Amino acid sequence: MTDDRIGIIGTGIMGAPMALNLVKAGFKVTAFNRTAARAEALASDGVDVAKSIAEVGKMCSVVITIVPDTPDVLEVVEGDGGLASSMKDGSVLVDMSTVAPGATRELAGRLASKGIAMVDAPVSGGSWGAQQGTLNIMAGGEQATFDRCLPIFEAMGKTITLMGPSGMGQTTKLVNQILVAGTASAVAEALVFASAQGADLLKTIEAVSGGAGGSWQLANLGPRMVQGDFAPGFMVKLQQKDLRLIQEVAQEAHLPLAVTSMARQYFTSLEAVGLGGEGTQAIIKAVEKLAHREARQNS
Amino acid sequence: MTDDRIGIIGTGIMGAPMALNLVKAGFKVTAFNRTAARAEALASDGVDVAKSIAEVGKMCSVVITIVPDTPDVLEVVEGDGGLASSMKDGSVLVDMSTVAPGATRELAGRLASKGIAMVDAPVSGGSWGAQQGTLNIMAGGEQATFDRCLPIFEAMGKTITLMGPSGMGQTTKLVNQILVAGTASAVAEALVFASAQGADLLKTIEAVSGGAGGSWQLANLGPRMVQGDFAPGFMVKLQQKDLRLIQEVAQEAHLPLAVTSMARQYFTSLEAVGLGGEGTQAIIKAVEKLAHREARQNS
Repeated sequence: MTDDRIGIIGTGIMGAPMALNLVKAGFKVTAFNRTAARAEALASDGVDVAKSIAEVGKMCSVVITIVPDTPDVLEVVEGDGGLASSMKDGSVLVDMSTVAPGATRELAGRLASKGIAMVDAPVSGGSWGAQQGTLNIMAGGEQATFDRCLPIFEAMGKTITLMGPSGMGQTTKLVNQILVAGTASAVAEALVFASAQGADLLKTIEAVSGGAGGSWQLANLGPRMVQGDFAPGFMVKLQQKDLRLIQEVAQEAHLPLAVTSMARQYFTSLEAVGLGGEGTQAIIKAVEKLAHREARQNS
Repeated sequence: MTDDRIGIIGTGIMGAPMALNLVKAGFKVTAFNRTAARAEALASDGVDVAKSIAEVGKMCSVVITIVPDTPDVLEVVEGDGGLASSMKDGSVLVDMSTVAPGATRELAGRLASKGIAMVDAPVSGGSWGAQQGTLNIMAGGEQATFDRCLPIFEAMGKTITLMGPSGMGQTTKLVNQILVAGTASAVAEALVFASAQGADLLKTIEAVSGGAGGSWQLANLGPRMVQGDFAPGFMVKLQQKDLRLIQEVAQEAHLPLAVTSMARQYFTSLEAVGLGGEGTQAIIKAVEKLAHREARQNS
């Protein structure tokens, strides 16, 4: 598998550390990014930088896309000079972006007719997980294609699961985001409540983390909320995009999701004041705003 | 400390296993329960059974109360023949019930004037945690009183934290319950969404549990939701009582908690059809009902 040259389109907050972990694992990696400087920054660490998407498509037997949204994936794959017209028969497209499950299934169908296999393999764990190579990877596609990609996934992630046919990776990622958004909301409300009662917030997080109220969100984002560290592991605007995808699927299925909707409103309140680029832990600011009080504490 | 005789008032779903763990740790334990049969059932395992609350108060240097609600604690302590009139000067009342932080602080003040120290030490972890001796214990009170009780707590719990002065154990428990209720809601919505998309639910739980969407609620209650196991680790009606306490404190502090309120509505929907005695994982039934679809799956 390390004889394959791996392409990666999109070297942002997620794609860049993922590319570096592929190089560390011994893969030959060729990257392309719309903002060229972000890809070029990886050259000194052994990533080859391509001048175009078509160049990546021609050179690589497996191409990873990790871009913001559904239209971005469609543009990279099916736009002028896109992967669909440059990737070889028998190659594999691995879309690790989070996009609409329905659009993924349709794209996989169109690529299959050109002899290109597709796996949807969105990830969870944020930029921290990408850096540490501990991402959760939720895949959808054929077993054989998944097996072929597994060594690549193992270079970037920890829990790697083939969930079912095309689109089921994306579906599982949306399930994950329902959990993430609702749990983050609960953490923010809990900390604002604790603060209003004069509790030591870091001590509170420590006391409850091991019990029935414990979560990844509490353990990882709770301290950041309290200490006012809003640097993004995962950006508010991307969480909002995922919540939009969730709502699109849920509305089509006539599925009311009350807590998820409320979480979306909190994030909307952050975007209203230009905080879309902060980490999702900034949700505590929306809860604080509603309560006219701060829950920040540096200890 | 094992020379102290420990009293325990309330041998229900939580108190009974806690009493047994005290006996296992070598303590002499005397129990009383309003429904006498529940205390008597523990006699064969080495728990002495008292005929009245006053008898427990007279015999024991440390008395644990673990009863449903604030009025129950006040009745056990300050009612006719209660602990306040039977416990000795220098003894300690450990209230492990979940009750209002304000009422706790006031009770501790009244007991102090009688020479009885009080620690509020509510627990998290449900009956499963009580059985395994892995409860989270969140305490409020004086350091010296806490230190005296620590060997007792260690017989019943894993993470044991003195959070601050009287009432802060209760406050921390309410923080815990905000986390529990919001996270459980997110888990239920995620599973109903996953089911509507045709996902394998147990596989989905496994795939996302290790990542940013992971939580105690997902890992422990998720599979029970999916398999239709609604036996209580923690009952809906007690979660509702805790949510009422949270809302009382929050309203007094003019603190809006949108997601927590929505979680309460889900549990209210369960009580409407007589499901207050089921475990909190039954919240998935409220989400299912709203969506007119089931997410049960036996695999």
